[in-house]
Amino acid sequence: MNPPLIITIGREFGSGGHEIGAKVAEKLGIAFYDKKIISLAAEKSGLSDEFIEKNEQRSKSSFIQNLAASSVYSGGFFSSQYMPLSESIFISQAQVIRDIAAKESAVIVGRCSDYILAGRQNTINVFIHAPVEVRVARIMRIQNMTEADAMKLVATSDKERGNHYFRYTDRKWGKAQNYDLSINSSLLGIDRTVELLIKLAGIEERGNIDN
Amino acid sequence: MNPPLIITIGREFGSGGHEIGAKVAEKLGIAFYDKKIISLAAEKSGLSDEFIEKNEQRSKSSFIQNLAASSVYSGGFFSSQYMPLSESIFISQAQVIRDIAAKESAVIVGRCSDYILAGRQNTINVFIHAPVEVRVARIMRIQNMTEADAMKLVATSDKERGNHYFRYTDRKWGKAQNYDLSINSSLLGIDRTVELLIKLAGIEERGNIDN
Repeated sequence: MNPPLIITIGREFGSGGHEIGAKVAEKLGIAFYDKKIISLAAEKSGLSDEFIEKNEQRSKSSFIQNLAASSVYSGGFFSSQYMPLSESIFISQAQVIRDIAAKESAVIVGRCSDYILAGRQNTINVFIHAPVEVRVARIMRIQNMTEADAMKLVATSDKERGNHYFRYTDRKWGKAQNYDLSINSSLLGIDRTVELLIKLAGIEERGNIDN
Repeated sequence: MNPPLIITIGREFGSGGHEIGAKVAEKLGIAFYDKKIISLAAEKSGLSDEFIEKNEQRSKSSFIQNLAASSVYSGGFFSSQYMPLSESIFISQAQVIRDIAAKESAVIVGRCSDYILAGRQNTINVFIHAPVEVRVARIMRIQNMTEADAMKLVATSDKERGNHYFRYTDRKWGKAQNYDLSINSSLLGIDRTVELLIKLAGIEERGNIDN
């Protein structure tokens, strides 16, 4: 029997990926996780939501390097008590994501969930992106911002998400091969992209390119 | 009025991208270009097909560097007569692709066509990929090869295509943001991927994520 369906969504800031994920979950009648994961992770590690939010995308150096360093300074490699805080947060979140995937069908936005669940059956990994000018226009509208501010926010966010992803996965963020489907949300727009993902979710079994 | 529909397809070797492109073109009743482009380019530049095929993916250094060098040694920057041969081939092929796009609807596989037609209206840029093990299995079957040979071929081809693309476009091959849609062909299989692309091709106008 297949494990529960998980759709992971990586997304560029302003691409509508979060909204798309929420709508897909709603229409499929399955759970939706984004910041909730932070809360769950925080409960596990005893840290406040606010603290985790502030710290999780700020660190600069590679996760691998930090892990190596922490294993020198501390006795236990995975002893979160002695780990740099950001690594401890990542590991807690990864555990939460694995726990969700074990128990229920869900859409999970961000948090390197594609990487954390790599190799899992019945998982569709999606990346939502859009041209910069489209994202800037969306952010200006939603956040009531000037064009200059929106452009700055997009640039900063792209950089932070890329750094964060690379740091914890050692993979390039937005590399097509890491996802089953990557789509420019302005090709179809939000609602038709949602429909497309729902169709993919309904596929009984994976295709075979060997026939 | 919209210009003719162009679907460009970048693809990993063994992913079925070529077959998918051919089927999409056939079902839509539009032209299909792959190696034909080389022939057309060869006619224009007076070089033989075989010579072009042999040379076009072999060069190592960056296109930009070569162009810079050639502009020092020759008087004219775009005087193909004095250009390194591979650059001259690329420029001929680019012109052929632009000529096609100006006159008819078509599926164009490879040849950095997504980059060459960047910004063009009524263009859908697609990237087809698949996990290595899936591609190796396909190549073993189609080319009647051992697993070791197929793996070698996949690795070599990935590297060559990546180098070729980067050399001429200064962009990373397989970066999701460079395409409207990137898809793992083993998610749906060849035929359902073809159906998906045909649906996208039928979209009257691009979506709007700003509503």
